[in-house]
Amino acid sequence: MIKKLFIFCYLFVYSTILFSQNTDSLNVKKIVDEALTNSISYNNLGYLCTKIGGRICGSPQAAEAVAWSKKVMEELKFDTVYLQELKVHHWVRGAVEKATVTSTKFGESKLSICSLGESVGTGSDGITAQVVEVKNFEELKNLGSAKIKGKIVFFNRPMDQTFFQTFPAYGGAADQRVHGAEQASLYGAIGVIVRSLTLENDDFPHTGVMSYGKAKDSIPAVAVSTMGADKLSLWLKSDPTLQLSILSDAKFYPEVSSYNVIGELKGTKFPNEYITVGGHLDAWDISSGAHDDGVGCMQSIEVLRIFKALGIKPKHTIRAVMFMDEEIAQRGGKKYAELAKLKKEKHIFAIESDRGGLCPTGFSIDAGLDTIKKILKWKKFFEAYGIHEFEKGGSGVDISPLKILNFPLVGLVTESQRYFNYHHCANDTFDKVNRREMQLGSAAMATLIYFIDKYGY
Amino acid sequence: MIKKLFIFCYLFVYSTILFSQNTDSLNVKKIVDEALTNSISYNNLGYLCTKIGGRICGSPQAAEAVAWSKKVMEELKFDTVYLQELKVHHWVRGAVEKATVTSTKFGESKLSICSLGESVGTGSDGITAQVVEVKNFEELKNLGSAKIKGKIVFFNRPMDQTFFQTFPAYGGAADQRVHGAEQASLYGAIGVIVRSLTLENDDFPHTGVMSYGKAKDSIPAVAVSTMGADKLSLWLKSDPTLQLSILSDAKFYPEVSSYNVIGELKGTKFPNEYITVGGHLDAWDISSGAHDDGVGCMQSIEVLRIFKALGIKPKHTIRAVMFMDEEIAQRGGKKYAELAKLKKEKHIFAIESDRGGLCPTGFSIDAGLDTIKKILKWKKFFEAYGIHEFEKGGSGVDISPLKILNFPLVGLVTESQRYFNYHHCANDTFDKVNRREMQLGSAAMATLIYFIDKYGY
Repeated sequence: MIKKLFIFCYLFVYSTILFSQNTDSLNVKKIVDEALTNSISYNNLGYLCTKIGGRICGSPQAAEAVAWSKKVMEELKFDTVYLQELKVHHWVRGAVEKATVTSTKFGESKLSICSLGESVGTGSDGITAQVVEVKNFEELKNLGSAKIKGKIVFFNRPMDQTFFQTFPAYGGAADQRVHGAEQASLYGAIGVIVRSLTLENDDFPHTGVMSYGKAKDSIPAVAVSTMGADKLSLWLKSDPTLQLSILSDAKFYPEVSSYNVIGELKGTKFPNEYITVGGHLDAWDISSGAHDDGVGCMQSIEVLRIFKALGIKPKHTIRAVMFMDEEIAQRGGKKYAELAKLKKEKHIFAIESDRGGLCPTGFSIDAGLDTIKKILKWKKFFEAYGIHEFEKGGSGVDISPLKILNFPLVGLVTESQRYFNYHHCANDTFDKVNRREMQLGSAAMATLIYFIDKYGY
Repeated sequence: MIKKLFIFCYLFVYSTILFSQNTDSLNVKKIVDEALTNSISYNNLGYLCTKIGGRICGSPQAAEAVAWSKKVMEELKFDTVYLQELKVHHWVRGAVEKATVTSTKFGESKLSICSLGESVGTGSDGITAQVVEVKNFEELKNLGSAKIKGKIVFFNRPMDQTFFQTFPAYGGAADQRVHGAEQASLYGAIGVIVRSLTLENDDFPHTGVMSYGKAKDSIPAVAVSTMGADKLSLWLKSDPTLQLSILSDAKFYPEVSSYNVIGELKGTKFPNEYITVGGHLDAWDISSGAHDDGVGCMQSIEVLRIFKALGIKPKHTIRAVMFMDEEIAQRGGKKYAELAKLKKEKHIFAIESDRGGLCPTGFSIDAGLDTIKKILKWKKFFEAYGIHEFEKGGSGVDISPLKILNFPLVGLVTESQRYFNYHHCANDTFDKVNRREMQLGSAAMATLIYFIDKYGY
């Protein structure tokens, strides 16, 4: 009898596992099929990029994007849709930004530039000075005040082409943009011009936030396209006394209110336990914010839409969060974590898509080894759709403040070769996003959330 | 003593293996670095696509591409550069191809069409008839002559969006393009219009070769853009008697001479044993032939350039082959294999790049399990650069005739989501190729050839 019972139990457990695996397999296929055959998220991205466009925090476009994405989620009939208020910086590029290089040897040439985010402007007279080219802060220090005072410092260290992964190549060159002005002002520079952070050789200047840190003086900081940087460098070699003029009317205004936009599908079993999927709604004013990060926002909404469309009822509440202000001061991510803590919300998982809408390849997992092992158990379900990298690593800028609540955070990893061609520049437009690549990203996130919701972590 | 000798031998062998692994590791890094930092192949692709353009076999552009790619390899000072003559079909699209749909309900609308490769033209009066829409040959057969005779058959089965891999989705819909006219003519149709083979919803018609097979009558066959197909299908639902007019002056001319273009680096140890790396030089006349397959040709030349630039002297002779006529009758690949057999050449390995210049992800290996196992031993060298798929499968259309010589054939596998947006249409232009993605493809092929040349298979 015991033996029979044992066999019965064994068969029951075994068939339950098999049944469960088959159900999972079917559900994953349904999720991917739904993502690949429904164009709502892609069409919405088109609207966001082409009708609203660049939407840096504090701008009218950011306000419009908040209202519109709320409406999108309401029309999809998510259970709850609401705003989370926060204060954001209000920096405005202004209408004028230009740079001209004048050489007694070569004549005059315009350079394609843009102010770096949060830089001061030049005043209406602009600044004009000789240029000192450096590759890094060490060189700057060695030149010192004697060579730098009264000059414009030209930071011209390219991103390293030999890196296979482009994000580390970006990381290896970003100090010039972020801290270049702070460092150069220590030696009396009157402005900085920084080589754009891209691996491409083209004429798009790439913006991005900079900081004066503890510098006493705030000097204007602009980015120059890689083609412009190469030309300036070439001219300087033959004519070290050439003059560079920069004009920019970037300005600060008082802080304003803005919002995270949140939509929820209520959990059937644990309505007060949360899974977050997000991207950031703000995007640089000179771009259309397609890859960075309209895609991440529309994918996040899509994850909830897929669950709803397939009638998969999550046990936990799933939240799509459009974070505000990733690009300047990350206030949206901080506010979301602060409120979660204050309200003593129980969060079990969060995932962010902020590496562009290119083909998804894996997950970067900020969690303990046990969680990573658990996720690896579902590997075969992902590999059928090209998701093969499951690595310990950082998640996303907006969800990382949630780390204080101590639960797994994940970043969607995408194919990165062409990402920095678009990042923070006018080239980041809707037509650069491939519908299917974006849809596969939504499917990958929905699938991971499906497993986490069902089996925990 | 014996023991000492044993230890000595052990240490010698062990350190040789270690040294060899380190050398390989360094050489692989050198290969990838060289590929990523030198833009010759990318700039050459720009020339091929923008200055020469579409180059279907038999065309003046194909002849120009032959002369130019020979010159490119001569200027790179490859050891031997030569042409291999062959005869090719000479089909010309002509200056006029258009289609107009006229409905008593909806009015008149132009459709974006193009003749399928090797289709006859319509004559100067064009053809005008009612349209019968079908999804497949089964439906066509069921309708039979009673419903088809005197009509234009509209094949409108889309590529399946739910396939993750896009090549099988293409394979699942291509019968309409290749055999649609042959099948429809059996039932007395006077022409066919076929939905373009792409997963995108846009207005580019996609050409590609068709065949009349054993059909008695050759009827005109054109492709219509997916947007055009959707419109035609929608109109037909409400107005089944609408009329479609097609005009095309496609024509055949007598066969002409053309060439495979071959460049060699002579092997230092086995100069009469060959490793082939290739792509096809011909490309559809309506495209610029960037992804299909200018990339494969320029990558193949690049493999040899990398070896030469790094001073890596291959043991076997490495040949870069620009095959002619992949798109129509595959005469280039057949001629190359035929001559290899005739001359009793010993070939040890061949690889082809003809899946577009998108990010390389792996190799499709047409060889025995032993060879696949051997290649898998080098996996770690590839994984650092995103190459993670090592699967048994087909190689490439141009190298597959070499199969009679019984040695391993490999196809470079690339990320496939967006490939069919470009395939065989005017959208396949230079700007759709990302420099780094293309360079990583060259690096992957050069690395595999490096290992095969050094260690055999």
